[in-house]
Amino acid sequence: MATVPLPADAQADPRVKAVFDDIRATRKTDFINNLWRALAFDPPLLERTWADVKALMATPTLIDPLTKEMVYLAVSIANACSYCVHSHTAAARAKGMSEAQHAELLAIVTLAARTNHLANGLQVPIDDAFDAARPS
Amino acid sequence: MATVPLPADAQADPRVKAVFDDIRATRKTDFINNLWRALAFDPPLLERTWADVKALMATPTLIDPLTKEMVYLAVSIANACSYCVHSHTAAARAKGMSEAQHAELLAIVTLAARTNHLANGLQVPIDDAFDAARPS
Amino acid sequence: MATVPLPADAQADPRVKAVFDDIRATRKTDFINNLWRALAFDPPLLERTWADVKALMATPTLIDPLTKEMVYLAVSIANACSYCVHSHTAAARAKGMSEAQHAELLAIVTLAARTNHLANGLQVPIDDAFDAARPS
Amino acid sequence: MATVPLPADAQADPRVKAVFDDIRATRKTDFINNLWRALAFDPPLLERTWADVKALMATPTLIDPLTKEMVYLAVSIANACSYCVHSHTAAARAKGMSEAQHAELLAIVTLAARTNHLANGLQVPIDDAFDAARPS
Amino acid sequence: MATVPLPADAQADPRVKAVFDDIRATRKTDFINNLWRALAFDPPLLERTWADVKALMATPTLIDPLTKEMVYLAVSIANACSYCVHSHTAAARAKGMSEAQHAELLAIVTLAARTNHLANGLQVPIDDAFDAARPS
Amino acid sequence: MATVPLPADAQADPRVKAVFDDIRATRKTDFINNLWRALAFDPPLLERTWADVKALMATPTLIDPLTKEMVYLAVSIANACSYCVHSHTAAARAKGMSEAQHAELLAIVTLAARTNHLANGLQVPIDDAFDAARPS
Repeated sequence: MATVPLPADAQADPRVKAVFDDIRATRKTDFINNLWRALAFDPPLLERTWADVKALMATPTLIDPLTKEMVYLAVSIANACSYCVHSHTAAARAKGMSEAQHAELLAIVTLAARTNHLANGLQVPIDDAFDAARPS
Repeated sequence: MATVPLPADAQADPRVKAVFDDIRATRKTDFINNLWRALAFDPPLLERTWADVKALMATPTLIDPLTKEMVYLAVSIANACSYCVHSHTAAARAKGMSEAQHAELLAIVTLAARTNHLANGLQVPIDDAFDAARPS
Repeated sequence: MATVPLPADAQADPRVKAVFDDIRATRKTDFINNLWRALAFDPPLLERTWADVKALMATPTLIDPLTKEMVYLAVSIANACSYCVHSHTAAARAKGMSEAQHAELLAIVTLAARTNHLANGLQVPIDDAFDAARPS
Repeated sequence: MATVPLPADAQADPRVKAVFDDIRATRKTDFINNLWRALAFDPPLLERTWADVKALMATPTLIDPLTKEMVYLAVSIANACSYCVHSHTAAARAKGMSEAQHAELLAIVTLAARTNHLANGLQVPIDDAFDAARPS
Repeated sequence: MATVPLPADAQADPRVKAVFDDIRATRKTDFINNLWRALAFDPPLLERTWADVKALMATPTLIDPLTKEMVYLAVSIANACSYCVHSHTAAARAKGMSEAQHAELLAIVTLAARTNHLANGLQVPIDDAFDAARPS
Repeated sequence: MATVPLPADAQADPRVKAVFDDIRATRKTDFINNLWRALAFDPPLLERTWADVKALMATPTLIDPLTKEMVYLAVSIANACSYCVHSHTAAARAKGMSEAQHAELLAIVTLAARTNHLANGLQVPIDDAFDAARPS
């Protein structure tokens, strides 16, 4: 199911085809996953989304590729996005995440969730020492 | 403000004092931040929480310390925990996060939030290729 | 799957039948979607929920019907409610949302998600100018 | 700060005064907390909100009053509503929640948050045995 | 689907078998639901998670077993964890939750969600009376 | 408080000054709110964020400006972003939102939150009729 069509012939639109071709070239695979197929219903939204994902996730930056995927996956878990959890677990594995690292990542995410709920339950005042905007 | 008292003499309780002493020794600082002071209202909860945070975040494991803090911070942002965002930004800085890495981390978190909301809006079906439980 | 039964003969209960009849009359369709069928397990909860949805969403009010549906859909996306995203995308379409408006709505929702996570990450202090409760 | 005015003379409006009087009579206290003062900017919204809160939380129902407050507080923590966490912690205390029960409640909420994030990370398929809508 | 394998022979690992045996003995049933089967991919994570769930949810504590399950379920709903909503609705039923109590629980959760969003929309300042950390 | 500095002389950086000048020109006001001041710690992040906000929120598009602000505000409430709720309530007012429309918007947001939690609690199967990707 989806809230937009997933037409088999999306690439008949040249703007869609151009993005799909770039996804294939960038990722070195013929596989186009459903998020991009769904976005084909609006080529400008497809283009902007892929351009931003490519620039940050498929291009060398300060933070190493596996760490970036692990951060992305962690946020996707916290935001309860089923699709994103699946796609970014696969992406993290493709970038080298071992089973043991996967388990540890889940342990960190669940520990954070636990103390997030604890601090929200306690409504603890923020320590002055944490204020980066204070005059030093 | 807080939903529990933050007594100045929490360490009069020997179980609280033992945890606070371990926090100080582990972190090599005299500073005890307010989350731990607030948890002093229930020593068993304080002990269990600190034991688990220490085991994962203050002990060498598979994932390097800075990556662990960045994942923790990312989850705290997604869960809208103000206290945790402050404390784990400070922790990530203490473990070496530069301003440029901080900015990039925020860029990853916000990109994930964006595609999380996009995939949740599109309700895209999950690709079979992502199913780690499928027979191969 | 569901956490309550979805019996085919729910309308054997006259309170359930009365609500279903009102849904059909109000929406001018024979179709009763699964949320209402599931709520039939508790007629008072069904009655109260439908009464409030009808009063706000199926009755002329200050805000026009399509805008109301777009706001409803936006909240459902942010709250990761799959069922609601599907049902309110369909409702927004029924009230005239075009494909291009749908794409723009998703662009707004994802931009908001992005700056929500950014502001939560930065923990920016709220400007005095935004305080509606301040003496003028 | 607030996004609506909190005028000192809100009760000059007779609809607002009637609700405030009912809050005072129901709760047997002169104290009107800020949520109700803020809602005074729109008397119909104030009336509907109070009517529903009163019917469920200030009236005997199937579930006992303290359990109801603990459930309310748990949801408020998960939804990161600072104001609600404060007001419903106070309400739960007023209905008899001890410090030890408060600590245990936080332990349950944080355990749930932990397994919520774990199951969302694992994307475990739902067991057929849990389907209440299956034919028996 | 899942992000980790769900092997049929998970219990070939003696650490996994020990946990599964303990789950069966504690719950007095042969049924092992999928969350535990999925966690078998990392025995230490399986062991720690079960130990903590057992200690709080399957052991007598201050709060009665049904209330604990209702709180757990409420948090799982708010965190949009489909799997957990299914498993803890079943667990609450097994501990005696009637259909009418289920309906009332949903009514409380949805009322809390409503005022959570209302208070977050109004950004009401927290009343001094709610501050448990204030000097008395 | 903030997790990054809010220096008074941020505009000493010409890239920051250029963005601030564009904000002032676009919004026809000298006021620069704190989110932009905080983003000055990383000029590229500031530039990209402002460019995207400007393109969608400060430029005529398909959806009218007030509806766009109401959708943005609704998402910000659901995501529990205090800063964003304040800033976008102010923006919606600046674009003509009346007190009565504000109250109605809050009513829609809270009704959505209520049925979001209800549907997540019931785990209702999605009706085939809602599937936009089905063959017609």
